[in-house]
Amino acid sequence: MSDKQKQKSAAEAFRAMHRGKRILLLPNAWDVASAHIFEEAGFGAIATTSAGIAFTRGYPDGQRISRDEMLQAVSRIAAATKVPVTADVEAGYGARPEDAAQTALAVIESGGAGMNLEDASGEANQPLVELPLQLEKIAAINEAKRKTGVPIVLNARTDVYLLQVGPAEKRYDQALRRLTAFRDAGADCVFLPGVRDAATIGRLVKDLDFPLNILAGPGSPSISELQRLGVARVSLGSSIMRATLGLLGRIAEELKTTGTYRSLENAPSHDDVNRMMPSQLTTKSS
Amino acid sequence: MSDKQKQKSAAEAFRAMHRGKRILLLPNAWDVASAHIFEEAGFGAIATTSAGIAFTRGYPDGQRISRDEMLQAVSRIAAATKVPVTADVEAGYGARPEDAAQTALAVIESGGAGMNLEDASGEANQPLVELPLQLEKIAAINEAKRKTGVPIVLNARTDVYLLQVGPAEKRYDQALRRLTAFRDAGADCVFLPGVRDAATIGRLVKDLDFPLNILAGPGSPSISELQRLGVARVSLGSSIMRATLGLLGRIAEELKTTGTYRSLENAPSHDDVNRMMPSQLTTKSS
Repeated sequence: MSDKQKQKSAAEAFRAMHRGKRILLLPNAWDVASAHIFEEAGFGAIATTSAGIAFTRGYPDGQRISRDEMLQAVSRIAAATKVPVTADVEAGYGARPEDAAQTALAVIESGGAGMNLEDASGEANQPLVELPLQLEKIAAINEAKRKTGVPIVLNARTDVYLLQVGPAEKRYDQALRRLTAFRDAGADCVFLPGVRDAATIGRLVKDLDFPLNILAGPGSPSISELQRLGVARVSLGSSIMRATLGLLGRIAEELKTTGTYRSLENAPSHDDVNRMMPSQLTTKSS
Repeated sequence: MSDKQKQKSAAEAFRAMHRGKRILLLPNAWDVASAHIFEEAGFGAIATTSAGIAFTRGYPDGQRISRDEMLQAVSRIAAATKVPVTADVEAGYGARPEDAAQTALAVIESGGAGMNLEDASGEANQPLVELPLQLEKIAAINEAKRKTGVPIVLNARTDVYLLQVGPAEKRYDQALRRLTAFRDAGADCVFLPGVRDAATIGRLVKDLDFPLNILAGPGSPSISELQRLGVARVSLGSSIMRATLGLLGRIAEELKTTGTYRSLENAPSHDDVNRMMPSQLTTKSS
């Protein structure tokens, strides 16, 4: 099989995971090491976290990193893992449908099997992209998929809840209207981060009758509860990466206070991690 | 002050930390996020970990990564932090003294305040670089420091213990001979990783009468015990980075078994991490 055929197969396999019996559980990686850990743990696919990738390079989240730099990170992860990788490419790096198409082509170029597209505008006075423009972006991405013949999975996200847009009592309807429009415009999955309430999630699954991605983390229903509610896909966003930063804070505190190393225990050895890396080698540790 | 004068001051301040009353405790960072956590925790200087940087990019440890790629990572960390950063640049990326000098110039260019130089050859049948050649490398680095006027701190390391070179009963003498020669050739600090035994460390401090770096981690004497033994500088190598990989393994396990999020708790919030990044922004989370 050619690389393109392999990528096509990976995208198709990834799409099928959204309609399987089991919920698709996607851990979010930010570098090759984190992706390897998830792959070794047996996850069938991996997502990236835009926030995590931005943080490792010193950028705040929210498209402060360039499309090129983000895709460079995605490309490294995709090249190093055998399972499908879906790219968190934020709002597509640009205001126009052509920018979204360009981003989709870059995801395909990077070896990705899927991508997210958010509707956050980055503007305080009008936080969401107008719906017709967002649908044009989705159409432009679908056109890029058709042209290249690589049917990456498009996960279309609305930030109605995350950005707390409009009065609280109108958010559900606003989110449902957007997600329904994304679905009808040809997205493969729709994504509503910021919802943790089981009743709302269950209602949304029924109202959409389409693969739904939920962002989980502390306070969310468990994975099995999400599956019971009919959620198709669950991802963790930047929470895994931020958990490692929490551990770093505890390590720093221990080193500076008791001067001991308890929080450094339960780690893979230097040799273990070396063996996990693509080309093996047994030399020195540091 | 010019950038060069600032860097000169940082290198001088960093050198002084090797001769202060308190032991110099260096946490090892591998990306900007980890460096920020250490800086916020109040460490006065930060080291990098070559293994950690290599792992995040999918390379095994041991100069499989190029000098350019390693220094690019160091440069990002140095640019994002206010405290002195010392670069783990392995064995200097090349067999010749000119290569070591080139690496020193690249460290200075990257904004570093110090560098390590190991004597591992990477060859199985003769694991250490011949001592006269290693001393030529140190001289070449010192010449690069003189030429540029930026007196980065050279931490000269021997891998006698780490690579278990020769019969066990001769290692101490072999290590002492090398470290003494590094000291006399103009290194600013000498480094013996692989020693955890307090008696041996104490003996080495006395025999050298010079700033000594010890690699600490689970099983090592505590930081205060190392200070009592007269150790000037302690670093953690890749152990902090590997501890985060251990946490990732536990998170993966929890997600796949109970499907809960307990191991994701005790993390800084998305907003907290955004605020930590050089240019601030408050938008959406993902």
